[in-house]
Amino acid sequence: MAETYWKAAAKALREKVKNLKSLFPDQTKITKDAKPVSPLAPKSGFPALPRILGVEFAAVEAGIRYQNRKDVMLVQLAPGTTIAGAFTRSSTRSGCVRDCQTKLATKVPTGAGAALIVNSGNSNAFTGKAGDKAVAAITNNVATALNIPVSRVFSSSTGVIGEPLPYDRIITKIPQLISNLRENAIDMAAQAIMTTDTFPKGSAATVQGEGGPIHIAGIAKGSGMIAPDMATMLAYIFTDAKLPQASLQKLLSRNINATFNSITVDSDTSTSDTLILCATGQSPAAEPKGTILKAFETALHGVMRDLALQIIRDGEGATKLVEIRVTGAKTNADAAKVAFSIANSPLVKTAISGEDPNWGRIVAAIGKSGATADRDRLSIRFGDILVAEKGWRNPKYQEKDGAAYMLQDELVIAVDLGIGRAKRSVWTCDLTNRYIEINADYRS
Amino acid sequence: MAETYWKAAAKALREKVKNLKSLFPDQTKITKDAKPVSPLAPKSGFPALPRILGVEFAAVEAGIRYQNRKDVMLVQLAPGTTIAGAFTRSSTRSGCVRDCQTKLATKVPTGAGAALIVNSGNSNAFTGKAGDKAVAAITNNVATALNIPVSRVFSSSTGVIGEPLPYDRIITKIPQLISNLRENAIDMAAQAIMTTDTFPKGSAATVQGEGGPIHIAGIAKGSGMIAPDMATMLAYIFTDAKLPQASLQKLLSRNINATFNSITVDSDTSTSDTLILCATGQSPAAEPKGTILKAFETALHGVMRDLALQIIRDGEGATKLVEIRVTGAKTNADAAKVAFSIANSPLVKTAISGEDPNWGRIVAAIGKSGATADRDRLSIRFGDILVAEKGWRNPKYQEKDGAAYMLQDELVIAVDLGIGRAKRSVWTCDLTNRYIEINADYRS
Repeated sequence: MAETYWKAAAKALREKVKNLKSLFPDQTKITKDAKPVSPLAPKSGFPALPRILGVEFAAVEAGIRYQNRKDVMLVQLAPGTTIAGAFTRSSTRSGCVRDCQTKLATKVPTGAGAALIVNSGNSNAFTGKAGDKAVAAITNNVATALNIPVSRVFSSSTGVIGEPLPYDRIITKIPQLISNLRENAIDMAAQAIMTTDTFPKGSAATVQGEGGPIHIAGIAKGSGMIAPDMATMLAYIFTDAKLPQASLQKLLSRNINATFNSITVDSDTSTSDTLILCATGQSPAAEPKGTILKAFETALHGVMRDLALQIIRDGEGATKLVEIRVTGAKTNADAAKVAFSIANSPLVKTAISGEDPNWGRIVAAIGKSGATADRDRLSIRFGDILVAEKGWRNPKYQEKDGAAYMLQDELVIAVDLGIGRAKRSVWTCDLTNRYIEINADYRS
Repeated sequence: MAETYWKAAAKALREKVKNLKSLFPDQTKITKDAKPVSPLAPKSGFPALPRILGVEFAAVEAGIRYQNRKDVMLVQLAPGTTIAGAFTRSSTRSGCVRDCQTKLATKVPTGAGAALIVNSGNSNAFTGKAGDKAVAAITNNVATALNIPVSRVFSSSTGVIGEPLPYDRIITKIPQLISNLRENAIDMAAQAIMTTDTFPKGSAATVQGEGGPIHIAGIAKGSGMIAPDMATMLAYIFTDAKLPQASLQKLLSRNINATFNSITVDSDTSTSDTLILCATGQSPAAEPKGTILKAFETALHGVMRDLALQIIRDGEGATKLVEIRVTGAKTNADAAKVAFSIANSPLVKTAISGEDPNWGRIVAAIGKSGATADRDRLSIRFGDILVAEKGWRNPKYQEKDGAAYMLQDELVIAVDLGIGRAKRSVWTCDLTNRYIEINADYRS
């Protein structure tokens, strides 16, 4: 009986989900292709991004997997642009990623231009030698058409793993992409790189340089398979600053840990994670140095953090944005262990989705992390509410206060280990039925 | 609009779940207290376990958290019983666990008897000094009542974390527990230790010793917060073998890695995991040596493995039992990393729940594991079906074969890394909406 009942219940629930569209006739489909926007999306929509001199964008429909939407973007970068990158450390990373890494390690011809080409719908990952061939074909074609060295053409692919990439569909569109290139099309580019994303992601900043303003504008995509080593995400950030390649790479590397490497939706690292930072040098401002360089780095950090948090805001099925703020750890490694142990705990994440202030699960996540911790020295706070300390619940803590706090869309869970001075903040979202729905039939 | 829609959709789904009981009038409640039995439960029900001479059981209703069910069990062990144990390595482990560990390290009075006392409904974890006081009060009372040294009374508590344990309710029941003690009540004990479990777990084996049979009988509980370092689980295994304490501990330690430390429901390690193995020495058989000892170890391993797999079969919301079988790894540590990376991947687990043969997510989980892997040397199989090798999908593989395989209740996902000779198997279950439902409102 029990088994029959269980299966019938599961079937009924699945039917219910299928029938949601009839309950909500103003939505035609609840699928990956036509889905409601995340409740955590920025209320103001896609921001107005400044034009970056020396960068042009184009996007087209190539029909790689999705229909009736743009799925390939091309970015052309003016001669003299310096480029830095950061990539997934997955040992099964895609051909595009390996190709970008090789090219970034290559000596760049003086004054050469550059290009980025990105498709969504198919990640071209785990596609063997055929995948490498596709990367070569795409980047060679772009290089020839734009008359730039192939070592300056970087590609990314995002989407399903293990399916052959129909790269001829991309190559066919290269002339159209090139003729569409223009400076003010970054918003179309942001849309073209989306997969399960429910909104396009952009962020910008401006810094006063010596001789004029320096602009930064970035776009990103990512929603599931998000975890450190950088989340399943693609991000492209452009600036008109004058910065040598080595300085640019140093800035990127120094700021990635606290931004893109501090987010996790589901602890699953992708094979395709890519962040590329391009500096065209076309601002009238001189190369930033001293306090201006510091201001630029702060602004860049802000753009990187904003894009990273937008990815969490679009976490598959997310209804809560949660910062896990760990302080008082013995070492930086311990702080990270505790922060990610909490951020990746399915029990913590389901409790958050149920708006249950279940701090016992936070204790358990601290305990399993492998970091040095002492039951009697750690404290736990929900926002400013002291929930537990000295090995037990704070006697003044009332469950109703915790429960009221959990109703908010954005939460801070703060853990002080009371042992040392190391700290780490990471961001995650809750784990909901919608995550299961999205991922149980992503491909079907 | 989108946000309103989203919230309405979530509310509608939640209502649907609440209304399931009206769809299925023969089930009164779908809650943690009255839930359908897991579809993966052994079809034959709770097994008939042999009596172990020198072990007596009792269980009563103490009303610690649950109503109308037994929630405390007592086990009395005859003088001369040797005891071994294995425990969670959580740094926030409970007072009971610390107490058991201290006592097992204590020199045992010759010929003393022993006792185990276990409650469900409250884990007495993260309850500070009050928690330690509760453990002392309970074990001291049992020691006095049974006239055995307190260093030979071991306690466990399982259930919600961080709530004070109303231990007076347990102490009041000790006389009743003692008067109920009998050899053939192990099934009642198995029921009394359940929390979110949907069925009681038992396993047994018999080995022919020199001079008579040697029996093994064990019980376990566990359903969520199951991960290595030993899963949120309690297990008590009894044998009438004559085995010195040091031998018993060696047998336990040697077999725990491939059994209880190879299961994961949700990667969440508990603060209370406890396995206690007791040998009364009351079998007519001589102390097992040589081939008989080997046979005994094999039988013990079988009981441990069976109990561990029953915990996965009762994984919260589980509809599939999945073995992740990794071979060809460079080191044992690498094999374990890959196996657990796959077994804990939410994307792999949701794909399994959707019966989607999504091998790309397995590739991604291998890649993120941190183990040495080479895209072009690894292979992936679903059961006997070769899905991928040489860096790509097997050209003979057909999606419909993979999809048909995934419909089964019990699956084997085999990964050969093609690099070395190390291997590891671990067991997990799928990740379903039911897991979310159970854990989003465990306490409410």
